Amino acid sequence: MKFCYSLILFAFITANVAGQSKALVLQTDFGTKDGAVAAMKGVAFGVSPEIKIFDLTHEIPAFNIWEGAYRLNQTAQYWPKGTAFVSVVDPGVGSSRKSIVVKTKTGHFIVTPDNGTVTLIAESLGIDQVREIDESKNRLKNSYDSYTFHGRDVYAYTGARLAAGVIKFEEVGKPLEGDIVRLPYKKPVFENGIITGIIDALDVQYGNVWTNIDQVTFKKLGIDYGQKVRIQIIHLNEVKFDEAVLFGKTFSDVKEGDPVAYVNSLLHFSVGINMDNFAERHNIKSGGDWIITLRR
Amino acid sequence: MKFCYSLILFAFITANVAGQSKALVLQTDFGTKDGAVAAMKGVAFGVSPEIKIFDLTHEIPAFNIWEGAYRLNQTAQYWPKGTAFVSVVDPGVGSSRKSIVVKTKTGHFIVTPDNGTVTLIAESLGIDQVREIDESKNRLKNSYDSYTFHGRDVYAYTGARLAAGVIKFEEVGKPLEGDIVRLPYKKPVFENGIITGIIDALDVQYGNVWTNIDQVTFKKLGIDYGQKVRIQIIHLNEVKFDEAVLFGKTFSDVKEGDPVAYVNSLLHFSVGINMDNFAERHNIKSGGDWIITLRR
Amino acid sequence: MKFCYSLILFAFITANVAGQSKALVLQTDFGTKDGAVAAMKGVAFGVSPEIKIFDLTHEIPAFNIWEGAYRLNQTAQYWPKGTAFVSVVDPGVGSSRKSIVVKTKTGHFIVTPDNGTVTLIAESLGIDQVREIDESKNRLKNSYDSYTFHGRDVYAYTGARLAAGVIKFEEVGKPLEGDIVRLPYKKPVFENGIITGIIDALDVQYGNVWTNIDQVTFKKLGIDYGQKVRIQIIHLNEVKFDEAVLFGKTFSDVKEGDPVAYVNSLLHFSVGINMDNFAERHNIKSGGDWIITLRR
Repeated sequence: MKFCYSLILFAFITANVAGQSKALVLQTDFGTKDGAVAAMKGVAFGVSPEIKIFDLTHEIPAFNIWEGAYRLNQTAQYWPKGTAFVSVVDPGVGSSRKSIVVKTKTGHFIVTPDNGTVTLIAESLGIDQVREIDESKNRLKNSYDSYTFHGRDVYAYTGARLAAGVIKFEEVGKPLEGDIVRLPYKKPVFENGIITGIIDALDVQYGNVWTNIDQVTFKKLGIDYGQKVRIQIIHLNEVKFDEAVLFGKTFSDVKEGDPVAYVNSLLHFSVGINMDNFAERHNIKSGGDWIITLRR
Repeated sequence: MKFCYSLILFAFITANVAGQSKALVLQTDFGTKDGAVAAMKGVAFGVSPEIKIFDLTHEIPAFNIWEGAYRLNQTAQYWPKGTAFVSVVDPGVGSSRKSIVVKTKTGHFIVTPDNGTVTLIAESLGIDQVREIDESKNRLKNSYDSYTFHGRDVYAYTGARLAAGVIKFEEVGKPLEGDIVRLPYKKPVFENGIITGIIDALDVQYGNVWTNIDQVTFKKLGIDYGQKVRIQIIHLNEVKFDEAVLFGKTFSDVKEGDPVAYVNSLLHFSVGINMDNFAERHNIKSGGDWIITLRR
Repeated sequence: MKFCYSLILFAFITANVAGQSKALVLQTDFGTKDGAVAAMKGVAFGVSPEIKIFDLTHEIPAFNIWEGAYRLNQTAQYWPKGTAFVSVVDPGVGSSRKSIVVKTKTGHFIVTPDNGTVTLIAESLGIDQVREIDESKNRLKNSYDSYTFHGRDVYAYTGARLAAGVIKFEEVGKPLEGDIVRLPYKKPVFENGIITGIIDALDVQYGNVWTNIDQVTFKKLGIDYGQKVRIQIIHLNEVKFDEAVLFGKTFSDVKEGDPVAYVNSLLHFSVGINMDNFAERHNIKSGGDWIITLRR
């Protein structure tokens, strides 16, 4: 009877372990019009049918590493510990750039070319350790000798093996020598009553403007809900927008068509128009050369 | 031995229950270019890795509640009882609009702001009961005090907990007081040998025009396959289309480039062009002010 | 005790079989703006909640069977044996075209209208057997008598039942009489030191040009990495491009803005521009009337 007990216990544990496959979350600039993403998923599914595969987005603008870093940072924290992210925005494919897996302090994995993709995550979640992928061990069997589609043959394959528990983090390869590549970027500055920051992303679907000015920095202006904040947006020395805008809790705090400043879902200062597209109306884009200043 | 039996039986039942996680189907107007949808999925997956998560669409035109209601109605009936739909087209986010879960008579759940999203489902599947989400109990732990991304922190979270069986429908909150919000819309009218209806959606990909004239109403004209129906499309008193069109079973009933009237996959009267785009060719859009009349 | 053993063994086997549901991979030209794809998934999920459902793409250009055939061929080999693909690009819906399931020699299933979709797979993976779908047995119960949405009611339904193991391949219907429909297409020709082929697809996201000239054929020119290949692209007797281009291992072999010839992820000859869009720059499209010639 005792034996029977242990067997059942064993069965439970096995079932449990089998059920513990982690999520694999894919981000690329490949789009979804062709078969590239589906080939990556096929390889991952071939590693283990128990893996849960999700898309972050495949619409990162081609070669835009910054936006890849931004979207990853926007999302990763909402996924459980152990989730493996594969992020392939890889203008340097085929060059000497390394392939790495980053383990964050929160226990998330990022499988990616070492080109700056983890710049923001490194600051928000923190890096526990980085390992360089050893392709002699972590590459799809029978992938072409003459050609390697890294997104499919190395990144999706390795991410899936991590998510499925086929390999441990230590089996990815040796710890990376030196630091990871980080993209340069400005942090917001508060000086003489003025905060200067950049527009680091657009809320694409609605045309809202998102800045790198976090809530803590913004609070230094001492502006309460219902009060106005003077916003200037400058691109290459040209003033694109210059108005005092109501700081609200939600878009409904202003009437339709009126601008509103608010704190977005990442707790950063943002500005939009209720029921309209701010970026389109004022011809605003995002990037390090889109400067925004705030004052009372 | 008996004991062993019961244990095994218990193991079976447990496994079965664990495997019974229902589908969670997401619809938004967020698009998939940024991380918003992926953050919702991360939260849902965090509730239970056993949930099966699907997309209805994230390409609802921004703030277009009607189209959200339409797509939900087009799809829900094909999913099994117990499926939880999360639909977030929410121009009033942050206003006093309520958050609700609708249980249909068919046993589907719709998690959504109370803004008209269930207008059509309420008529097609019928409403069993509506509960208002009690955010003090049904909100992602550690979601920001200062800011709530309702789609992620409340709707995806609650939908996932329903789908996973973590909470029962009764635990969503108290029954809604009063009726749900319903969008006004015209029903087709048959009078003096003329049916008057509206173009309530486009079959976007192919440019076919879909109307709110159901098959039963259309049959009142007594038009058989192979006969012609006279179609007028009017927008703001301007006649956009006025032709007698063959009523066919399929597009192949007419030659390429010719118009054809047919009954669509929702059993509604529709019109298109074989191998071409009717809406584009005649500059037709959809909405309550796009009137269509049919006669012999 | 022995009995207990067998029971546990049985439990294991059952669990294992339940876990062996195969992948169902969907490809259409429906787009994802409406509810059509989600309705297909609902039907598939209704067949068995254990099925793993994936998208190949839903952005095949409307009615473009060739591109459907191409994307399927690009992807299928990366999915495990037993995977069921449902491909619905069906300009002839409602005509007398047949509905088939192809079993490849590699053990993959393709559920599709018999209109040429398997043209390329037939050559690459090989066909083991083709069966015609018997709709009297393989159609969603309660699907409309008057109307059948084949993608949902027949193809998704049948694909899901194959993937879930509810039916065996033999239960699809009788073996197809006669051969499948095949799209005509040119193969590359090597003559007098010149290879002539076609541009059979674009790498849409980046604007690279992919040809039907496989690596083996290309090698006949004897061009090594670092050497140049003379490329002419001709459309309807008009020369669209005529340059000697470096043959590289990767894009990084040339400087930004320079063209590069390379072997793509399908081992076919391709040409692009490092960090730019070749197809857009030179106004190149794909199809049987886009001729490309290569010489030393």
